[in-house]
Amino acid sequence: MELPITASTSAACCIGDSCASLTREAIDERGARDLALVLKALADPVRLRLVSMIAAHDGGEACVCDLTEPLGLAQPTVSHHLKVLVDAGFLTRSKRGTWAYYALVPGALDAVAATLVTV
Amino acid sequence: MELPITASTSAACCIGDSCASLTREAIDERGARDLALVLKALADPVRLRLVSMIAAHDGGEACVCDLTEPLGLAQPTVSHHLKVLVDAGFLTRSKRGTWAYYALVPGALDAVAATLVTV
Repeated sequence: MELPITASTSAACCIGDSCASLTREAIDERGARDLALVLKALADPVRLRLVSMIAAHDGGEACVCDLTEPLGLAQPTVSHHLKVLVDAGFLTRSKRGTWAYYALVPGALDAVAATLVTV
Repeated sequence: MELPITASTSAACCIGDSCASLTREAIDERGARDLALVLKALADPVRLRLVSMIAAHDGGEACVCDLTEPLGLAQPTVSHHLKVLVDAGFLTRSKRGTWAYYALVPGALDAVAATLVTV
């Protein structure tokens, strides 16, 4: 299933405190919808493991070829989950030679965390 | 749809750093599954607005009667979403007289945010 995530609803829109804080102010309908889409992109065990594995990988980046075996999943499945994370603003994708390399977008996870903290 | 969230997969299990950090260490399969369930409970526009409205309400608690009108939703729908948030460990529910009152579980959102921050 493709999530209907656009540039305006990606994690990147939260960077620099432009996303509403959930508990420090009343979140409006649009803010809630945008934050829900970003959280939905993360709320999957395979995608959480991909983020974690890429962060832990040499140089903070990995290609699909590094990720399929530890997950025990086929390449198209892994590529689909990587695309959801790229579209949601959590990962960058850069093609070099045969493979595309994925890395964390700096600040994206922190921006989402910042919308959740209450203190 | 009821989420299969049990006590062992609630946000409360993250309190006190017992949940894995997503990027500071490699998250295992069970940690990823538990965190995905907790994030899934939050990843809904109505539930995010409920959390925000309850946090902003007088005394930090609200009953269904306070929440249906601003959301424009029927009471059974609101009650369902509140139950998902209670089951996931984000809200407490205490019955007083005719109504049940909902409040944020202290530290639950912060514990989830702590699993996401990278710095």
